[in-house]
Amino acid sequence: MAKRVEHDFIGELEIEDNVYYGVQTFRALQNFNITGDKLSSYPSFIKAFAQVKKAAALANFDLKLLDEQKKDAICKACDMIISGKHHDQFVVDMIQGGAGTSTNMNTNEVVANIALEILGHKKGEYQYCHPNDHVNLSQSTNDAYPTAIHVALFDELSSLAKDMAVLKQSFINKSEEFKDTLKMGRTQLQDAVPMTLGQEFHTFAVMIAEDIDRVLEARNLVTEINMGGTAIGTGINSDPKYPKIVAEKLCQVTGHVFRTAGDLIEATQDTGAYVQVSGVLKRVAVKLSKICNDLRLLSSGPRAGLNEINLPKMQPGSSIMPGKVNPVIPEVVNQVCYAVIGNDVTVSFASEGGQLQLNVFEPVIAYGLFNSISMMRNAMLTLAEKCVDGITANEKVCSDFVYNSIGIVTALNPYIGYENSASIAKESLQTGKPVKEIALERKLLSKEQLDEIFQPQNMLNPHMSAEDKAKFQKHSPFV
Amino acid sequence: MAKRVEHDFIGELEIEDNVYYGVQTFRALQNFNITGDKLSSYPSFIKAFAQVKKAAALANFDLKLLDEQKKDAICKACDMIISGKHHDQFVVDMIQGGAGTSTNMNTNEVVANIALEILGHKKGEYQYCHPNDHVNLSQSTNDAYPTAIHVALFDELSSLAKDMAVLKQSFINKSEEFKDTLKMGRTQLQDAVPMTLGQEFHTFAVMIAEDIDRVLEARNLVTEINMGGTAIGTGINSDPKYPKIVAEKLCQVTGHVFRTAGDLIEATQDTGAYVQVSGVLKRVAVKLSKICNDLRLLSSGPRAGLNEINLPKMQPGSSIMPGKVNPVIPEVVNQVCYAVIGNDVTVSFASEGGQLQLNVFEPVIAYGLFNSISMMRNAMLTLAEKCVDGITANEKVCSDFVYNSIGIVTALNPYIGYENSASIAKESLQTGKPVKEIALERKLLSKEQLDEIFQPQNMLNPHMSAEDKAKFQKHSPFV
Amino acid sequence: MAKRVEHDFIGELEIEDNVYYGVQTFRALQNFNITGDKLSSYPSFIKAFAQVKKAAALANFDLKLLDEQKKDAICKACDMIISGKHHDQFVVDMIQGGAGTSTNMNTNEVVANIALEILGHKKGEYQYCHPNDHVNLSQSTNDAYPTAIHVALFDELSSLAKDMAVLKQSFINKSEEFKDTLKMGRTQLQDAVPMTLGQEFHTFAVMIAEDIDRVLEARNLVTEINMGGTAIGTGINSDPKYPKIVAEKLCQVTGHVFRTAGDLIEATQDTGAYVQVSGVLKRVAVKLSKICNDLRLLSSGPRAGLNEINLPKMQPGSSIMPGKVNPVIPEVVNQVCYAVIGNDVTVSFASEGGQLQLNVFEPVIAYGLFNSISMMRNAMLTLAEKCVDGITANEKVCSDFVYNSIGIVTALNPYIGYENSASIAKESLQTGKPVKEIALERKLLSKEQLDEIFQPQNMLNPHMSAEDKAKFQKHSPFV
Amino acid sequence: MAKRVEHDFIGELEIEDNVYYGVQTFRALQNFNITGDKLSSYPSFIKAFAQVKKAAALANFDLKLLDEQKKDAICKACDMIISGKHHDQFVVDMIQGGAGTSTNMNTNEVVANIALEILGHKKGEYQYCHPNDHVNLSQSTNDAYPTAIHVALFDELSSLAKDMAVLKQSFINKSEEFKDTLKMGRTQLQDAVPMTLGQEFHTFAVMIAEDIDRVLEARNLVTEINMGGTAIGTGINSDPKYPKIVAEKLCQVTGHVFRTAGDLIEATQDTGAYVQVSGVLKRVAVKLSKICNDLRLLSSGPRAGLNEINLPKMQPGSSIMPGKVNPVIPEVVNQVCYAVIGNDVTVSFASEGGQLQLNVFEPVIAYGLFNSISMMRNAMLTLAEKCVDGITANEKVCSDFVYNSIGIVTALNPYIGYENSASIAKESLQTGKPVKEIALERKLLSKEQLDEIFQPQNMLNPHMSAEDKAKFQKHSPFV
Repeated sequence: MAKRVEHDFIGELEIEDNVYYGVQTFRALQNFNITGDKLSSYPSFIKAFAQVKKAAALANFDLKLLDEQKKDAICKACDMIISGKHHDQFVVDMIQGGAGTSTNMNTNEVVANIALEILGHKKGEYQYCHPNDHVNLSQSTNDAYPTAIHVALFDELSSLAKDMAVLKQSFINKSEEFKDTLKMGRTQLQDAVPMTLGQEFHTFAVMIAEDIDRVLEARNLVTEINMGGTAIGTGINSDPKYPKIVAEKLCQVTGHVFRTAGDLIEATQDTGAYVQVSGVLKRVAVKLSKICNDLRLLSSGPRAGLNEINLPKMQPGSSIMPGKVNPVIPEVVNQVCYAVIGNDVTVSFASEGGQLQLNVFEPVIAYGLFNSISMMRNAMLTLAEKCVDGITANEKVCSDFVYNSIGIVTALNPYIGYENSASIAKESLQTGKPVKEIALERKLLSKEQLDEIFQPQNMLNPHMSAEDKAKFQKHSPFV
Repeated sequence: MAKRVEHDFIGELEIEDNVYYGVQTFRALQNFNITGDKLSSYPSFIKAFAQVKKAAALANFDLKLLDEQKKDAICKACDMIISGKHHDQFVVDMIQGGAGTSTNMNTNEVVANIALEILGHKKGEYQYCHPNDHVNLSQSTNDAYPTAIHVALFDELSSLAKDMAVLKQSFINKSEEFKDTLKMGRTQLQDAVPMTLGQEFHTFAVMIAEDIDRVLEARNLVTEINMGGTAIGTGINSDPKYPKIVAEKLCQVTGHVFRTAGDLIEATQDTGAYVQVSGVLKRVAVKLSKICNDLRLLSSGPRAGLNEINLPKMQPGSSIMPGKVNPVIPEVVNQVCYAVIGNDVTVSFASEGGQLQLNVFEPVIAYGLFNSISMMRNAMLTLAEKCVDGITANEKVCSDFVYNSIGIVTALNPYIGYENSASIAKESLQTGKPVKEIALERKLLSKEQLDEIFQPQNMLNPHMSAEDKAKFQKHSPFV
Repeated sequence: MAKRVEHDFIGELEIEDNVYYGVQTFRALQNFNITGDKLSSYPSFIKAFAQVKKAAALANFDLKLLDEQKKDAICKACDMIISGKHHDQFVVDMIQGGAGTSTNMNTNEVVANIALEILGHKKGEYQYCHPNDHVNLSQSTNDAYPTAIHVALFDELSSLAKDMAVLKQSFINKSEEFKDTLKMGRTQLQDAVPMTLGQEFHTFAVMIAEDIDRVLEARNLVTEINMGGTAIGTGINSDPKYPKIVAEKLCQVTGHVFRTAGDLIEATQDTGAYVQVSGVLKRVAVKLSKICNDLRLLSSGPRAGLNEINLPKMQPGSSIMPGKVNPVIPEVVNQVCYAVIGNDVTVSFASEGGQLQLNVFEPVIAYGLFNSISMMRNAMLTLAEKCVDGITANEKVCSDFVYNSIGIVTALNPYIGYENSASIAKESLQTGKPVKEIALERKLLSKEQLDEIFQPQNMLNPHMSAEDKAKFQKHSPFV
Repeated sequence: MAKRVEHDFIGELEIEDNVYYGVQTFRALQNFNITGDKLSSYPSFIKAFAQVKKAAALANFDLKLLDEQKKDAICKACDMIISGKHHDQFVVDMIQGGAGTSTNMNTNEVVANIALEILGHKKGEYQYCHPNDHVNLSQSTNDAYPTAIHVALFDELSSLAKDMAVLKQSFINKSEEFKDTLKMGRTQLQDAVPMTLGQEFHTFAVMIAEDIDRVLEARNLVTEINMGGTAIGTGINSDPKYPKIVAEKLCQVTGHVFRTAGDLIEATQDTGAYVQVSGVLKRVAVKLSKICNDLRLLSSGPRAGLNEINLPKMQPGSSIMPGKVNPVIPEVVNQVCYAVIGNDVTVSFASEGGQLQLNVFEPVIAYGLFNSISMMRNAMLTLAEKCVDGITANEKVCSDFVYNSIGIVTALNPYIGYENSASIAKESLQTGKPVKEIALERKLLSKEQLDEIFQPQNMLNPHMSAEDKAKFQKHSPFV
């Protein structure tokens, strides 16, 4: 294999001539053998980084810091990467020391070498297009790297919101399908009062809907960028007009609105946006996990459980118990949620530990966030398509629970008072006799009254105005 | 001591007649001996609960569910509690089973017994004003309890934002005081490029300012209440007009805007707002801790540390090392932050674990949130008043670091290129010779040029337009 | 109120003459207004600190560094504190800056002033017995404070293990009581194969038993102390014979075995023992929470849940639903567990953040550990006495689940193969027909064979040797 | 591509005939598209699972449940997998629903099809060797899967301990190299008292050494296995002699000691061992992170930091600041530690959430633990070889800090008392005058005495017996 020699201020190194990365990437490859997860597994991050480099080149050209030829070559190289080419050249481990310098240099070197070939030069002839002096011009890792993370997060959070909307719609569909399925509501796992299965599934839809709002709110935080801050945010070595221009270029290149932070020194060291995004992902995870817990509980059985709903059968559930089918989809989603919650603690540690003018632990923050979002997206679609869409209701089981329950005694409160109701409940629990029968025996209400009180529509919604109550009492021989 | 007998459906109990709580509170007192932290230690929560009870009584009166006499007595009783009276009667442990039922009943019983006395009756004569039938009318623990938490959180988060503003102002004051103190910026604990101490402190102010915004954003989530949902959100036993009216009354009573949730079933089981508030508190903690880490680092020494700033001396620092003074205030604030971050994990667990129509773990969520906010408030003011306000700068130390540093070589990049600069840096590190001297020896720039480049104002801000650079080069024999 | 004037190198202060603490405690009181939880709420910690001071005085006397009169006075003062006196003089907030210096000085000052009175002097006449020069002799906060934490943790962990043993015994009692109650085992909330309720409760006992072992293992780590390390572990200003002697004295004073760490410098900065103890407490919490989750699930209902067991009724469960009783005891225990798990994260942060020769965040570590243990102890006894001891079984519910279940088809596997069994399971699920009936219809086994296979003792234990199977098959017309 | 048809009780599926896995693996592949991390990335887990299958086959043969021909074929197939062959056939996502059933079935199917080819049959001709009836004989996922995790964890924890020993030795080597380098010790980042750099590095070695002990202790917990428990631990369908025999076979196959749990029902649902292992990994992470924090701090500078040590230069540190070299190796190790700490929270959630007779979340637990160990192993070796081994000391910087420090005043305490020393410290801080000079001016000690007191060997170790002090005082005109 042909090789070329590259050097940095540490020394010289031989690099195989077919690769587009250079000496600094090569060193990082040797230094960081940590997770096995390389940049190339995070295409939206690579794409975002190329967009940042392109925006910088365009800004540098406008500011006359970069000539047209180089600008064009750099932009073309970036476009190739944006379109998905050469991603295999992004070889550095996602968890790396150096605050992302190796990721930035991997990008600078790949862009430079592609640009060199576009310009008719050989790889490594950096005098014609240099990773630092041209591709990285007006930038530092400390602004380009977090900006690329922000751009990628914007993209990923947008996709997450879309995938969440799919799950939300699945729940809405089911809430309509089940809108007449009467069932017991439960508080503290104890029988409470009636509701419909449709109401229960609507709740899940509302939860997801609210979380979509939170995700989009958090997404807004990453539209603030620190391009132009260079090393520590003071903008040393950069043109005062650069921040504004590069932000405009980035908007053009990405098609989204990004704006320069008000205080670049703060923006360069602050990881608050990441902590917030991570906290919101944790919130989404906590609630999605709660939903999965409920789905597993409601489908428990088939004989020795609640058995109110059936999840679609996805695979045999046991290597020993024939016919057993497990709620494997909610189970896998629960686990994704736990992983996301764990990642949030990692992000907290990494954010808290960053000292002075830069948070050196951004790589593990990015790693955690990108992994969390990617798993959550898979989880949202998997849950929607492989589980929720196929759920069916066991209507008889649901309604039997209501009519056998003691909890419906609650509906008698307004007519006979809490203490009378409690006494009926006690007798029902001890004797197994239905609530209605006991109420009748005690002559507290007439059969007609009880029939009306226990009509589903009267138990599922507020309906107890003073007038209603009065009218009711007027016709009652008992109350 | 005179005693009265009270009963519930579990049985009868004797209660000392001087206490305002009743049988259900008494049982909770026996059942929950857990933390030793009683409701009475959380006055804003008790106040909020009384506000909720008052709003409910006003709404019930409007709906003709409660007569004027009882309404007036209940409202007066609530007002007494709101003004700080009888808090010692709130005796239940903050961590309790039953999803807050014991807290709700503690409130119902105390309000009822105060109201009874107002009405000229004895404590326990509940036929005249009943904890459940009158004080708790149209309510359930499952709507009254979370609503009270929301009201208290609104209050506490508002106070937190105010206390944060105090700290922010302290940092702003210092940023102005130190605006001309030149110092080295550091990335990855390595010397980077110059900045001012004022810029560094301004960063802290911006961080706190952004966090105030996040706190107020999160506060907005707790303005959504679920009054009227009763047991599980279906509003069983309540008047359909009740939710709207009680929300209006609550706005009047508290002076703040609260609004009824769109889906009361969802709102009754959802703890998303708590998770979000907790996540934001964690964010505030992470960043405040970072600030304290920096303050401790910058004041390290006095001789074998950075020693750029002096914290006010608050107390002798050692029982063995004479004259040692420690950064005790940032240290205690760091620890508060760690406690808040831990509480966030507790809140996540409690939220994830709540099943079906109610999250039974709200008490530990409230406990965590109230404690976190209270500690954070103390930490904000303590840091502002006992530390930041008294910080002084060691100007000479700061500027010596700049002029002895190698990092200023960065400012030469635009003129002599990254590789020349790197070579100078290497020589400087090896020989100890100043950067400027080496540059001069190598005849890369003239003395005048170097003087201009190394002027602080040229290193602290972006100033490197193509025109400037060109002009500079024109006059230079070297570049 | 009479006052005395005290001074330290910061300056002079007036202190009310009736208090036993002095100037440094007073400053700490002003500096640290954080949690409201004062040292005085942690009596075992105060007792342990007095034991450390006594041991040091005895060692100093043996080494002729302290005269007999002062030694006696200091020891008597310590004994008073050990016996529970003067705890109200320990007024500093548990979360404090200064790595515990304020706690150590609070102790030194209280001991000194009590000793002064014993010696016939007035409080504050430190020339006769000085907080630093005599009470703190041969010590630093950096060895005395962690040693006191270790001594207190030893005590508290021992008590925790005892309280856990109470809960273990409660579960053992129930496992014997329920040893013949046949019920369905469940995996993934789906019906699996039969077991007994006794086996289920025995599992809980084994879990607690294993956790007791882990607690005692972790307790062993805190028997290592760093007395004699003084400021940073080098033992500056101490007698080389001191570490050995003071460790012996501490063993005598406490009645437990403590030993000097092998490397005092490491021991002074290392918080590994705390992290391990916290990790084990988290483990205990995770498993105890799992047990409570199960208890709540098994007692769900009464009609629309599993309803296999009844928890004792501790209090009315609802302010609106009459007769509702909730599993309040497991619920409160779950919440304790979540708090403990959160504290573990706090401890991790505090341990990770400690720099160089001392971990300055020990106060929040101690706070977290002592609170976690205290809550866990309350939780263990509460769960045992107010819940487990009163649990009863619903035997009919349990056995009906077994005989109606499809899961028992598993027992047919060895005779008719997994695929035949799966086919029967499928038909049973679709038609509702019992497994046994279908097997009979398909003539796969005789009625006698099925009766034998489905005998409980044959499903609850391993019994399927090749010989048994062969013998069975010999008598079968089908297999 | 040729295809074969396979079926399970869900239905039939076509599978490409060149793959060794079967229908159930195929379904899992479709169901679980979550992390992209497949079983094949965890070779020690696959190896362990094959060892478990081999041990089971051997036990089944001894019990006459499996004929010799099948046993031999299964064992050969397992041996091929153990030796690293066919790992690409393990295609299921590591995070999966079904409590590991898919992993178990993936293994059963691959083993069966390899065995079929060994026996001269085609893949899919399961009548000759069936994944469930033969490969999985006497097993359930619920015993085979956790046992395989235990075997793999034993292996991985052993390797981790070895890699930790490498790092420990690196620190020991440096502690010897630096044993005479005098430096200031620091507490709370403030100058404290002198020590040697060798002592500081020895501390790191001791920390790692203690953690190796904890890792091996935790490893002991995973030697307990639940083979023979089958579905829920009752051992349904298994031979009573099986547990003992299969444990013996597993010991033979692996060469390590594994023993059957005392209560198989408990062992089947308990995840305590995982929580403990994870807690210990967290402990290791917390302390390793602390060490890296210290290395970064001690090497801070080169001019505006502590600069006591130099880390080897691994790569250029900045894309903008020439010559800057960063502590990239400790930085990457810190990040690994944060990831491990986050994983611990994930493990806690997954363990707490497992209900009743099985913890369905074991896959994410295994995922977390294997990833944590793998990253930690890489981190240990990376830190040793790419950082610690190349560290050099800046001796002059270190000793200058000592002789310029005020902290050495501590050494005067025993001679002139705490208050005199404090006064000297104060003057030194204010005037910049050295401690020694002030002491001399104040005529508190003679020059000879001061010289002796400040000799390094007298400040680095305990040496202050009453006799020494007395002797010293005798010769002193001052004391």
